[in-house]
Amino acid sequence: MDCIFCKILAGSIPSEKIFEDDEVMAFLDIQPVNKGHTLVIPKTHSPNFLEIDDLVLENMITRVKKVALAVKKATGAAGINVSANTGKAADQTVFHLHFHIIPRFDSDGLQPWPHSESEPKSRKDLAEEIKKHL
Amino acid sequence: MDCIFCKILAGSIPSEKIFEDDEVMAFLDIQPVNKGHTLVIPKTHSPNFLEIDDLVLENMITRVKKVALAVKKATGAAGINVSANTGKAADQTVFHLHFHIIPRFDSDGLQPWPHSESEPKSRKDLAEEIKKHL
Repeated sequence: MDCIFCKILAGSIPSEKIFEDDEVMAFLDIQPVNKGHTLVIPKTHSPNFLEIDDLVLENMITRVKKVALAVKKATGAAGINVSANTGKAADQTVFHLHFHIIPRFDSDGLQPWPHSESEPKSRKDLAEEIKKHL
Repeated sequence: MDCIFCKILAGSIPSEKIFEDDEVMAFLDIQPVNKGHTLVIPKTHSPNFLEIDDLVLENMITRVKKVALAVKKATGAAGINVSANTGKAADQTVFHLHFHIIPRFDSDGLQPWPHSESEPKSRKDLAEEIKKHL
């Protein structure tokens, strides 16, 4: 197994662990976007958010919330971003599902991605296309 | 109730709906970061990820996964970002919990936030501080 997060789970690579139970482990990101940036991973290996078992995901997300609340209190953050990136094109770098918990502070300089207004007609066509895949 | 997403749920503000069941509704973001940018909201009003009821959150996250898979297929995206922003400092603009589903494409120009290496000693102290709040 060549997965760095599986090695962290096994203890063969060290980490600053914050929380652990039967389902998940949470530890500090060693390359934080902001102070207190934490990762929550499932104990069962799954490459990403789109491939994880639903039951494991349900169990995971309430732990993400629990840890995020503690991170917010401990860091005094004004806000929290929670995110999961699937695929290299979406900036995923370790292919073991992880939720990022990123503390945010007023005027911390991090910018949201630019967005633009979409046309009603194109939205309607797109919504129809997506519904075909549900 | 002055919540725009509650009005979308009630149908008094139009939206391009993609999915709806007893728990959630999914619709296209009218100001997409990329084509196919979708929001998933719970039917019960909750201001954000940190305050939502655990059971509602569990039910929600599997719907987010289901809709994200359909968005990926329909748009031909190479990756998907899933995120929830809590608080104005974290770029939350509507205070009714919503998960963003953002399709990503190779070389779409969206940049991840900058990160920096943290010191092992400061990580250790920080982890201890967070654990006090769990």
